Amino acid sequence: MIDDFPFMRMALEEARRAADMGEVPVGAVITDADGALLARGHNRVIADRDPTAHAELIAIRQAARVLGSERLTGCDLYVTLEPCAMCAQAIAFARMRRLYFGADDPKGGGITVGARIFDRDTTHHRPEIYGGILDAPAAGLLKAFFARRRGGGSPMDGADE
Amino acid sequence: MIDDFPFMRMALEEARRAADMGEVPVGAVITDADGALLARGHNRVIADRDPTAHAELIAIRQAARVLGSERLTGCDLYVTLEPCAMCAQAIAFARMRRLYFGADDPKGGGITVGARIFDRDTTHHRPEIYGGILDAPAAGLLKAFFARRRGGGSPMDGADE
Repeated sequence: MIDDFPFMRMALEEARRAADMGEVPVGAVITDADGALLARGHNRVIADRDPTAHAELIAIRQAARVLGSERLTGCDLYVTLEPCAMCAQAIAFARMRRLYFGADDPKGGGITVGARIFDRDTTHHRPEIYGGILDAPAAGLLKAFFARRRGGGSPMDGADE
Repeated sequence: MIDDFPFMRMALEEARRAADMGEVPVGAVITDADGALLARGHNRVIADRDPTAHAELIAIRQAARVLGSERLTGCDLYVTLEPCAMCAQAIAFARMRRLYFGADDPKGGGITVGARIFDRDTTHHRPEIYGGILDAPAAGLLKAFFARRRGGGSPMDGADE
């Protein structure tokens, strides 16, 4: 575990906000090409009644609004959980520079398992990818959340676990 | 080519609107469990400065707002082009019943090529899928659009082709 990631700590704060709202606890932060904070968000699928309202998509859309561009060239994303295929593909479309993520998601991830978005020749941009960043607290939040519910399921596959 | 799909014709109208705006011409329509129109949209990546503003995601988010639910159970999606991995995963999250799509997208699709979202065990819902619906006019719109630009690229990989 690498310990010195202030923006991942901020993403963890976002994840905690999601948990407080009864949402699957995932948070995301985007920094610009100078390393300054650009956007932050957390999972809001239930609150917004929006199946696409994952932390990453919320932060990407917000960052694009702030920059006035559909491209987030040079920008970095910090997210507490391995992105799903939807979010990974959005990261590719946005041409982001680096992806830092926390815990792996063996049941619903789209990078290290399953769709493996960045290994496909239909994906035309691949960021630098760094996993396992502050993964212990990120996984702990998810574990505590799902322990309060019954059963298993993938963290990012909706709210019915 | 199957010819009797009024909602796919409506999706083609949406695609033409996108073309008129200088956007990659893709359109989408969602019907509810009774087969009534619920939402329609077209690609707005450039207009909205939003890398996630594909026709399908716009229609899914609109339908979820209308229904007040992050689940579109029993709803069907009509889209003029094979969805990318981002949109295919969103279709899975929304638990849609059927997906009808027009032209294949060999360079950027997420169903018949590449990520093949609905063939992965990390995808926890698979709609019924029908491809090639009114594919000739859908492909014609895309071909005409890209003929006005130089080069190739995937239809849904942004605006830089």
